[in-house]
Amino acid sequence: MPFPFRLDATEGAARTGALQTPRGDIRTPAFMPVGTAATVKALYPDQVRQAGADIILGNTYHLMLRPGAERVARLGGLHRFMGWDGPILTDSGGFQVWSLSALRKMSEQGVEFKSHIDGSKHMLTPERSIEIQADLLGADISMQFDECTPFPCERDEAARSMELSVRWGARSKAAFGERQSQALFGIVQGSVYEDLRRQSAEALIETGFDGYAVGGLAVGEGFETMCQVLDATTPHLPGDRPRYLMGVGRPIDLVEAVARGIDMFDCVMPTRSGRHGQAWSDFGPFNLKNARYAEDQSPLDESIDCPASRDWSKAYLHHLVRAGEYLGSMILSWHNVAYYEHLMARMRAAIAEGRFEAFRAEFRARWEQGQA
Amino acid sequence: MPFPFRLDATEGAARTGALQTPRGDIRTPAFMPVGTAATVKALYPDQVRQAGADIILGNTYHLMLRPGAERVARLGGLHRFMGWDGPILTDSGGFQVWSLSALRKMSEQGVEFKSHIDGSKHMLTPERSIEIQADLLGADISMQFDECTPFPCERDEAARSMELSVRWGARSKAAFGERQSQALFGIVQGSVYEDLRRQSAEALIETGFDGYAVGGLAVGEGFETMCQVLDATTPHLPGDRPRYLMGVGRPIDLVEAVARGIDMFDCVMPTRSGRHGQAWSDFGPFNLKNARYAEDQSPLDESIDCPASRDWSKAYLHHLVRAGEYLGSMILSWHNVAYYEHLMARMRAAIAEGRFEAFRAEFRARWEQGQA
Repeated sequence: MPFPFRLDATEGAARTGALQTPRGDIRTPAFMPVGTAATVKALYPDQVRQAGADIILGNTYHLMLRPGAERVARLGGLHRFMGWDGPILTDSGGFQVWSLSALRKMSEQGVEFKSHIDGSKHMLTPERSIEIQADLLGADISMQFDECTPFPCERDEAARSMELSVRWGARSKAAFGERQSQALFGIVQGSVYEDLRRQSAEALIETGFDGYAVGGLAVGEGFETMCQVLDATTPHLPGDRPRYLMGVGRPIDLVEAVARGIDMFDCVMPTRSGRHGQAWSDFGPFNLKNARYAEDQSPLDESIDCPASRDWSKAYLHHLVRAGEYLGSMILSWHNVAYYEHLMARMRAAIAEGRFEAFRAEFRARWEQGQA
Repeated sequence: MPFPFRLDATEGAARTGALQTPRGDIRTPAFMPVGTAATVKALYPDQVRQAGADIILGNTYHLMLRPGAERVARLGGLHRFMGWDGPILTDSGGFQVWSLSALRKMSEQGVEFKSHIDGSKHMLTPERSIEIQADLLGADISMQFDECTPFPCERDEAARSMELSVRWGARSKAAFGERQSQALFGIVQGSVYEDLRRQSAEALIETGFDGYAVGGLAVGEGFETMCQVLDATTPHLPGDRPRYLMGVGRPIDLVEAVARGIDMFDCVMPTRSGRHGQAWSDFGPFNLKNARYAEDQSPLDESIDCPASRDWSKAYLHHLVRAGEYLGSMILSWHNVAYYEHLMARMRAAIAEGRFEAFRAEFRARWEQGQA
């Protein structure tokens, strides 16, 4: 029984609505702040909510290693453990196994790897990934286990990898079974090859998922290629199910992906940038360390209804960042999450009011002005 | 025109009341969280207030070096700069010049030193310290400039140093002049020598201050010696003016100092401990890193009306501390400030209700139980 996905308005390929979960509506297009290790870094849960987030993402790889999935289960599941009562989507662990762990051993069965934390040995399979996500962590939305195809990648290798992910998708679905109040998403792979992306989408639809993600992007392929892959992929995904672009990205990426029919996003960028002294805006990121902000009494962005964006001056943030103070990272991370959520709210309103194309053009102009 | 100091109740030497400032009452005995670099580390200003703090402390030494006292003045003063509208007490810079800076050159005039941040050269005199505190930062309570007597210290050296601080106190007072809405405190020195402490107190009273601090403690002299110095000092301080024990300390130190007539405290311990995974309690500090908390679902302290103390489990904090997450330091620092403020509130209530000696005995028993 999949979550109802209500579509309120469309404009071109862009659409707005809500994915309705037992823990609350996820207004789409939605941005999911990343709570890797059971915390959206440097934010309190109520700040995440207040910033406008309906859902957060948790990382299976990190949580299975520390504190351990069985431990989270004994402590009442991820929601209770971290004090977040809204929906949580967990990734399958596949991406981090490839990007973070040491000594991987791949087989049709799954992947064996060593923890980057303590070197301990672990195994992830589609079945174990679903057990961790859906049963132990208690994710509202689980992701199928997949292989993260590297970039760049030869066509044969991309095909082999995509087909493995399709088989792992079917095993993930079988392990997940039918659930009343949890959903499972498939992940389209196929690197930059348009026919492989199409084959992947068709095979996943054959298996049948509650939503469809586009994986294997934000891995260095660049903005134009990302747009091309989306152009070649989203038309093959069911219109009545949510589409999730994994790990993307910059504000301009979100706007262009929404224009191509994407409904959900996650990215570490707002919180990571915040810890590095950066604040996001329509003109791109700017670094508060810069001497130009030393006596700038203006707030980060008065148009955003968030204390982090309105209550402190750039001069104060400049000082905090220079002094290496926690509060600098805290305020900037909070502002950045609020900026991203505000951007999604602006896109939702623009689509609902039939002026998304105008919004998109204006946004691109601002963005290009910021890069100049 | 000194701030009115209202005494509501006394029990033995212990007393409770309020120092009434234009920016609000400071309920005494009071604990001032330390906001070294214009931030109480890892806390939002509204959390500091919510934890029960009426006043915070700022550090002249740190602020004059970064962002610079003139810059803070151009940005509207310290209150506006950091978003704290309650009273602020600033120290004189003397202690940090001795403990942090390099290449000091002392004279009757003042002290020349090099910044520990960038090696730049600076001069602090009683006149410059008062200018920074009262005029540029805009402190509600400024401290006289003093020399921090090292510990241990020969009697002759302690006498010389105390006499210099007395002269610097008189110069601080002259520089401060008469002010309507700001106060100036003197600082009793004299190391562990009871007659020097008495001489210092008498000389400062001769000069005349709005409050009197006991300096030169919390420098390694130990609990018993601290108590002896207080026994030899507070009886010589005016009963109608607040008494401030600088840089102290552990909860047991606060209880014993209140028993000896101290009204105000500051200490970095609650925030520093929080950043190191420690939580304070009546039984002493405990470290959340300890494996015993891995699956402990109880909160830090349900009796404290603060989200940090009540809303998260020790198991979650154990995880955050082990994972090195910001949120661990944030919650623990917040709890520790709330614990300290709650302890002050308990002491104020006990004195008001004539049961402070019973409270003190019970507290000592708990503390000793915690050390066993």
